[in-house]
Order: sequence, then C-alpha cells, then structure tokens
Amino acid sequence: MTPHQPAADHIEASRVSGTTVYSTDGDKLGTIDDIVLGKRDGQVKYAILASGGFLGIGEDYYPLPWAVLKYDERQGGYVIGVTIDQLKGGPSYAREAAPSWGDPAYGRDIDDYYGTRAV
Amino acid sequence: MTPHQPAADHIEASRVSGTTVYSTDGDKLGTIDDIVLGKRDGQVKYAILASGGFLGIGEDYYPLPWAVLKYDERQGGYVIGVTIDQLKGGPSYAREAAPSWGDPAYGRDIDDYYGTRAV
Repeated sequence: MTPHQPAADHIEASRVSGTTVYSTDGDKLGTIDDIVLGKRDGQVKYAILASGGFLGIGEDYYPLPWAVLKYDERQGGYVIGVTIDQLKGGPSYAREAAPSWGDPAYGRDIDDYYGTRAV
Repeated sequence: MTPHQPAADHIEASRVSGTTVYSTDGDKLGTIDDIVLGKRDGQVKYAILASGGFLGIGEDYYPLPWAVLKYDERQGGYVIGVTIDQLKGGPSYAREAAPSWGDPAYGRDIDDYYGTRAV
C-alpha cells in the first residue's frame, strides 16, 4: 500500500459499457453491454454481460448482479467470481429475446441464482 | 389514486439516455445524454442534460444531480424543478470540453450549485 491519489469517484455509464469482464481465472468472458438501474433508488442493480465466444452460438446476454463485479485496475476490466459453467447455467437471453426489466421477478431470479440480494 | 400494477422496477441505463427533460413549466430543455455513477457505491449521482436549443450556440451539456430529476409518466420524460436561467447559470460544458468525472471536486461543484448533497 503506497500513498496514492484518491481513486476517481465517478464514471459515466457509457464508459462502463464496453468494459471487458474476466473470470477470476483470467478468462475473458465478454464485455458489459448495459447496466440496469433501480428506478426508485437510482442504484445500479445489474450489469449485462455480452458474450459471444465460449458457447459458439452467437452473442448471448448474461445479466449479473452488480455486486459480483469487481473492477481490477491492473487488467482494466471487471473480474467476477463466477465460473464459465456457472454463467452457462444462469439466466441468459439472445438479443431478440431481451427481458422486460419492468418485471421485478426477473431481477429476483438473477439474485436467487447468484445468491445475492438486491439492496 | 386508482389501483394499478406495481411500477416497473428497473430500467437499462441505455434507455435513460435519450429521455426528454422538461422544466416544471413544461418547457422542453433537452435530453439525457448520459448518467454518472459513483464507482464505490454504484449509485447514480448525476445525469447529463444535452441541450441545443435555448442558448443558440450549439449543443451544451448540463450535469444535474440525479435527485432533481423526477420521472413524469404522463409526459414520458423527466421534469426538473430548475428554471432555464438557473440552468444557464450552472455548470455546463461543450462536448469537446467534457469534464473529468474522476475529480471529486467537479461533482461537489454541481451539488453546491443545485443545493443537493451526494448520498
């Protein structure tokens, strides 16, 4: 721990989109496609990971609880403590089947799967 | 107050961008260009209003505390309790002069101007 400038406080949502997401093993899982906000509290609840590689069936979208993403300065991307198998088995959709974020149950399903709880 | 379906809980950040912003007088002030998050707490702190009309000198960007935006279902946009004169006198920038959101002082200046305080 060396003295350092205070970390940058704020970031534009448009800069979060496009950021690479890695597994803890260092595998590149994809990039952030969008983030999802709670309308009432203005809290970021979910990040949508776009991934087109490992399934080999075109790009798919994996909504993840925001709490599982940790920014890693060294890699310049988010790291998630989720294995590829966990991701494959979790909620996902193809672009043409984008979910209705207006349905509270959809968010709850994501939190249930990853064992997180929306604040 | 009639019985109604629970309001939609969540919204993608990409859908917030482009939403129209009105003054309480019903004047169209512009549209949301981007939102700004607190990196540590994942809270939406600011919304950036893009406005190209009333100053007549091309599009300018007005960062606003998120707390001053209220969504109005009827108008399908955000309403802010800020007059055009207040907006003109507040923090703004041209696209090529986008501020560094990494500087905590920049956010504080916005909150000071509008009399809000970041949570």
